[in-house]
Amino acid sequence: MIELEKLFEGNKRVISKAISIIENEEDSSKDLCKKIFPRTGKAYRIGITGPPGAGKSTITLRITQNLIKSGFKVGILAVDPTSPFTGGALLGDRVRMQELALEKNVFVRSMATRGSLGGLSKKTRDAADVLDASGMDIIIMETVGVGQSELDIAKASDTTIVVLVPESGDSIQAMKAGLMEIADIFVVNKADRDGADEAVLAIKNMLELRVEKVGWEIPVHKTIASTNQGIDEVVNSIFLHKDYLISSNLLKKKRMDNLINMIHEIVSQELKINFWNEEKENYLSNKIENIYNREFCVYDFVKDLFKYK
Amino acid sequence: MIELEKLFEGNKRVISKAISIIENEEDSSKDLCKKIFPRTGKAYRIGITGPPGAGKSTITLRITQNLIKSGFKVGILAVDPTSPFTGGALLGDRVRMQELALEKNVFVRSMATRGSLGGLSKKTRDAADVLDASGMDIIIMETVGVGQSELDIAKASDTTIVVLVPESGDSIQAMKAGLMEIADIFVVNKADRDGADEAVLAIKNMLELRVEKVGWEIPVHKTIASTNQGIDEVVNSIFLHKDYLISSNLLKKKRMDNLINMIHEIVSQELKINFWNEEKENYLSNKIENIYNREFCVYDFVKDLFKYK
Repeated sequence: MIELEKLFEGNKRVISKAISIIENEEDSSKDLCKKIFPRTGKAYRIGITGPPGAGKSTITLRITQNLIKSGFKVGILAVDPTSPFTGGALLGDRVRMQELALEKNVFVRSMATRGSLGGLSKKTRDAADVLDASGMDIIIMETVGVGQSELDIAKASDTTIVVLVPESGDSIQAMKAGLMEIADIFVVNKADRDGADEAVLAIKNMLELRVEKVGWEIPVHKTIASTNQGIDEVVNSIFLHKDYLISSNLLKKKRMDNLINMIHEIVSQELKINFWNEEKENYLSNKIENIYNREFCVYDFVKDLFKYK
Repeated sequence: MIELEKLFEGNKRVISKAISIIENEEDSSKDLCKKIFPRTGKAYRIGITGPPGAGKSTITLRITQNLIKSGFKVGILAVDPTSPFTGGALLGDRVRMQELALEKNVFVRSMATRGSLGGLSKKTRDAADVLDASGMDIIIMETVGVGQSELDIAKASDTTIVVLVPESGDSIQAMKAGLMEIADIFVVNKADRDGADEAVLAIKNMLELRVEKVGWEIPVHKTIASTNQGIDEVVNSIFLHKDYLISSNLLKKKRMDNLINMIHEIVSQELKINFWNEEKENYLSNKIENIYNREFCVYDFVKDLFKYK
């Protein structure tokens, strides 16, 4: 069992063990979450997302270096919504990340979530709760996103940063991918490449077109994370956004919405587990060939399945 | 109501109307699916996925042009797993796609699926069933994919094509994103750019590392879709893969697995709809502030919710 007092003191070994329990969906994970929940809600949660190759890991690294200089304790979750069998960041980044992990006030952890029973957001949020309860001031959750995973990360974050690159159509295509709806801050990284200004302009133009205007003017920053350029401005925007959320009373609303989302997810998972007993699984296995042969339709089968005990 | 006979004859107006019913989750959509289901299972289904900016639309266009020359009827679903408010493909592609849509033997449709009750794969599959029942020989489903959506498309397809570009780390990063697990055919598009051969080699090396070897040797093609280079070879691989699936009796297995997946999705959706009545929604609304204040934990709340009628 987890030594809770040590967890609350920020013991890295215990934090790591606790996150493993959540990652592996061990029986004790729900119990653990219950025990740490009263201690959560203090840390500020930042989501960093964007297409592959945008430099999210390096941005995360630089922002963290910046934050620990100001005395913050930072927990990092590198969430891989995909296969665990290949590594994440490029080798150089990974080495730097490991160096960062040796810092007293930094905890780094990568999590694989593909194929998990619960969704990405539930596990990520539970792991973030562990970091929150362990006394971290700021939690950064980083994930690759184009389809659904970036929505999940936004639903677990107070501030969401979308990282893009100047490249060919990438910015436009990424907006297509709905990143527009979730970004509180835009970053065009690798801004020394051709087309950076055009990308910034394209994003700003798209932001102009939004029907629903809010009180927060979404900033678009240029960075070269590899050489730390533009990172101060990004960090500054994070704190401005935090101030905005607090002063407009939106932080509480956002966090309550996030909790509602999480509850919906837990319910769906429970419903699924309760429904699919061995008998129903067998019934499905026995009938699937008939469905394949178009003897009856999937919707009629599901109707039957609901009558079945 | 849908004029079924006209749908089965391939009337484009009726096909379009039927897909709208599915897209908008109208009440009659389930009934429609039941009626067309017996007529499905004849078309061959191809999924095309990959990161933003890889040129999936152009590849789709070129493959389609190739197929109609051989006399096939082709239905195309451009699935946008994200926001419907921005366009999809770049303007030039869209114009070419519209020209293609005028061809007698082609039906083109884009679908937005974000925020739908059912997942991406269920709606896409229902729409593909409409095309199947309308007499299309081949159905191409195209979607941007990095997180989950490419898995969804693979679960609805017989052959899955993953399109990459030679760019900086993109190929390696894309493999990280689990594309490796779902690809039956790899395409490195925009192969006139620097690094195309290196990208091909990197993919081939990764394929070598797979633990689980299968009978199908996954080909890696170079294409320049804008000028139609390499498309014949891709089309050839599609038919070779189809032959392989049929001769090894894997096509039936794959399609049955896909149906099982779809049934799981429909069940989850039904469970959710049945569970969340007005009383439970209200109960959640009334308690969310207490949860926010950490008076009790989300898991205990969900437990309560399940006792609640």
